Amino acid sequence: MMLVAAGCGWAQADQMAVRKWVGANEKKILEEYSELIRIPNVTADLKNVRKNAEFIRAMFERRGVAARLLEVEGASPVVYGEIRTPGAKRTVIFYAHYDGQPVDPKEWLTPPFEPVMRTASVEDGGKVVDWRAAAKIEPEWRLFGRATSDDKAPIMAMAAALDAMKATGAKHRANVKFFFEGEEEAGSMNLEKFARQYKDLIQGDVWLICDGPVHQNRQQSLFFGVRGVTQVELTVFGPRRELHSGHYGNWAPNPAMQLSRLLATMTDGEGRVLVPGYYEGIVPMTESEKRAMRAVPDFDAELMAELGLARTEGSGEKLIERITYPSLNVRGLQSAGVGKEARNVVPAQATAAIDIRLVKGLDWRRQVDKLVSHIQSQGYFVTEKDPTEEERKKYAKIVRVRRGGGYNAVRTSMDLPVSRAVIAEMKRMHPDLVLIPTHGGSVPLWVFEEVLATPLIGVPIVNHDNNQHSYNENLRMANLWRGVETMAGLFAME
Amino acid sequence: MMLVAAGCGWAQADQMAVRKWVGANEKKILEEYSELIRIPNVTADLKNVRKNAEFIRAMFERRGVAARLLEVEGASPVVYGEIRTPGAKRTVIFYAHYDGQPVDPKEWLTPPFEPVMRTASVEDGGKVVDWRAAAKIEPEWRLFGRATSDDKAPIMAMAAALDAMKATGAKHRANVKFFFEGEEEAGSMNLEKFARQYKDLIQGDVWLICDGPVHQNRQQSLFFGVRGVTQVELTVFGPRRELHSGHYGNWAPNPAMQLSRLLATMTDGEGRVLVPGYYEGIVPMTESEKRAMRAVPDFDAELMAELGLARTEGSGEKLIERITYPSLNVRGLQSAGVGKEARNVVPAQATAAIDIRLVKGLDWRRQVDKLVSHIQSQGYFVTEKDPTEEERKKYAKIVRVRRGGGYNAVRTSMDLPVSRAVIAEMKRMHPDLVLIPTHGGSVPLWVFEEVLATPLIGVPIVNHDNNQHSYNENLRMANLWRGVETMAGLFAME
Repeated sequence: MMLVAAGCGWAQADQMAVRKWVGANEKKILEEYSELIRIPNVTADLKNVRKNAEFIRAMFERRGVAARLLEVEGASPVVYGEIRTPGAKRTVIFYAHYDGQPVDPKEWLTPPFEPVMRTASVEDGGKVVDWRAAAKIEPEWRLFGRATSDDKAPIMAMAAALDAMKATGAKHRANVKFFFEGEEEAGSMNLEKFARQYKDLIQGDVWLICDGPVHQNRQQSLFFGVRGVTQVELTVFGPRRELHSGHYGNWAPNPAMQLSRLLATMTDGEGRVLVPGYYEGIVPMTESEKRAMRAVPDFDAELMAELGLARTEGSGEKLIERITYPSLNVRGLQSAGVGKEARNVVPAQATAAIDIRLVKGLDWRRQVDKLVSHIQSQGYFVTEKDPTEEERKKYAKIVRVRRGGGYNAVRTSMDLPVSRAVIAEMKRMHPDLVLIPTHGGSVPLWVFEEVLATPLIGVPIVNHDNNQHSYNENLRMANLWRGVETMAGLFAME
Repeated sequence: MMLVAAGCGWAQADQMAVRKWVGANEKKILEEYSELIRIPNVTADLKNVRKNAEFIRAMFERRGVAARLLEVEGASPVVYGEIRTPGAKRTVIFYAHYDGQPVDPKEWLTPPFEPVMRTASVEDGGKVVDWRAAAKIEPEWRLFGRATSDDKAPIMAMAAALDAMKATGAKHRANVKFFFEGEEEAGSMNLEKFARQYKDLIQGDVWLICDGPVHQNRQQSLFFGVRGVTQVELTVFGPRRELHSGHYGNWAPNPAMQLSRLLATMTDGEGRVLVPGYYEGIVPMTESEKRAMRAVPDFDAELMAELGLARTEGSGEKLIERITYPSLNVRGLQSAGVGKEARNVVPAQATAAIDIRLVKGLDWRRQVDKLVSHIQSQGYFVTEKDPTEEERKKYAKIVRVRRGGGYNAVRTSMDLPVSRAVIAEMKRMHPDLVLIPTHGGSVPLWVFEEVLATPLIGVPIVNHDNNQHSYNENLRMANLWRGVETMAGLFAME
């Protein structure tokens, strides 16, 4: 039976028709998806990554999409596709990535590229089931395999959504473009090149970034930005070599203690960064964004219990508020040895690895400059290399600062017409839609904003408890089926 | 030719006679010493350690010493020997140890238990020479091999001194006892047992601890004490697992930053410990000790240049003064990863390894109590184990404190008659003798003071730049020859 969508836009009936079609075609979808998961896709495995690209290109071509591979020298290809819709007023570009994180098969319960279904997560005691033989596929079942969630799921959902639209007679109203990257898990190192080289081809009104998980309480969410990020490594130098702590301790300056003192000057212990100017230049949240933040379901208490925390930083501010500030996080410390490696020495050096997250309005290089100025104000000589003998003689306090790469935050206004259209469409499908002004994490989405000058909105579909980037990655079936509906709805958007 | 010592005590002539004998017998001494070095002596290598004991017992027996092995269950033996001198008014016990530090042969230029002579240290470009074929053994040459300096050198010097005394007709005036331990490099874990089990046998008026290096400027030194030591390991707990720093940074408390803040409260950044009561109970230096300290050659500027330090802690106090205080030294730091191991996480925990040195009057357990009280005063819940779920829920700041073993400092008064006698004897031989009230390092000499109630004085003979505990350990020939003289002089002491 074919259900025809009626009227302007995507109605309840269309969604129900797609849902019904999905219910009747679950095994067919899973069969094709299993084939896709079976192609290893670790970013560095260029040969197999390209096989994924070819496979996906063919998937979309079979469905009538003008699909091709975009190439940039030395990069894995982008799978690009187009659906032109006569009379369309808008072009919507769907982003996803088909490469995956590295795998250590020893850590996986079943091989990462041989998808299996379990009745639940491994942590919840899920048992392997033969979904092909099952009378019904339960919505809480999960398909295990690398990239089942991150980030082949949206690609499969889009392909199935095209089938569902065809079967139900639903129509496209906007132009649709597909842009599937193969290097995301290695930092999208060629994304800027692709954007510049194919700038004319990939013009559109909005990028929908189909990546990441939905809210922890399983409500569908949209996100409108991500934070920028950069890293800095600080190494404080003590004596030229490790010294016997009995003979020289508390006479020779101790770099581990110096580093501790230095780090302690950087925050107030409550998460507020004390580096002068750290919060200057932040683009304030709009009224819409503030409203959205207040409406985000409060999950802090559950998270604190799950993480074993009796308190959080920020004097009681919620997590969703905390990520609207730039952060300064000590991600690692090292000096001489601890535990079995501990020796009675004055260490020769001490290192802190720091990451800085940025919000809209801040420049990542400038933010590190502020930190360096602060370090200098604490009496340190700052160098980019190991100190020379001359420098050692001259300066009482020496720190080597190694700057890493980075990029800025992006945040699309929720008040743009295209934002409103996407929000409206999504709300129709998901009345409990959660609007997240910015994610705390970082993805190099600045390319879309800075190079292409196009707004972007994040449309995640997968479960948050999916073990992405780790072993036993999985996709919850209910998320896949709802994802197909979501993609069909967005494809049909005006 | 035999030179007979005349008069009471050891005169210039006796010393010259011994020096002459040594000059004529260098190769004979080195031949026997090479044989001793060839027996591997890593403390844990019990079978070979015992071979060393047997060899040394035989060395001293051949020289007319009543020598035997003292045994304690599960321990490597002590080589014990006696020379009874009719009419003696005093018994002097010579301590040394015949076991050595572990070796990693890959790091050694030549195998650690195949002694070779070089013309200088490796750092100064010393070349291997065939000393057996050489016309003259230069005083700056060095014999390389594990334990050549630490601590077989005094044992060889004592054996050669007995030969020299016999050859020159020098006489013992006091009773002499030898006590050579085989477990020092593993912490003398059975020394207390030996002392208690053989308490009656090893009575004497003074222990001469023949271990460690002479002053850095190569002047002969005596030391009258060592610092006590203990270790503590602090681990601050953050979230139950490492968290994504973008999603949770500056919301989830960061244990690396917390630990840094905590460490920063422990000292003033100038080496002064701020833990309340840390300096309470210290037995002050006597006038003799203060005078001795002022007379110790100032080596700080040279040391600072060698170590690449533009400043030291303690507001300009000299090293020799600094070691008269208890210290608090961060000997290691670790949290998540740095360098290539760095990940963008909020670490789950952060650890600092600390060692505490103690001076006379302080109790090592009590000193750690003071530190723990200080930590509690900073708002921490202190536990000895990983926190339970209940504790995680209850306490905002949690630190695990692991206490290591330890022992107290000892310091023999320079004003005791026996101290004065040893000082006088040594000054006769070494007019530029340096008197060091206490070493900065720690050796469990408390056993002699607390169990045996006998004063002790340290008589080091080897060069400070000997790579002891490291690879390419070596002994400077001039130190060995002067060591033989020194031992002969002490043997002849009244």
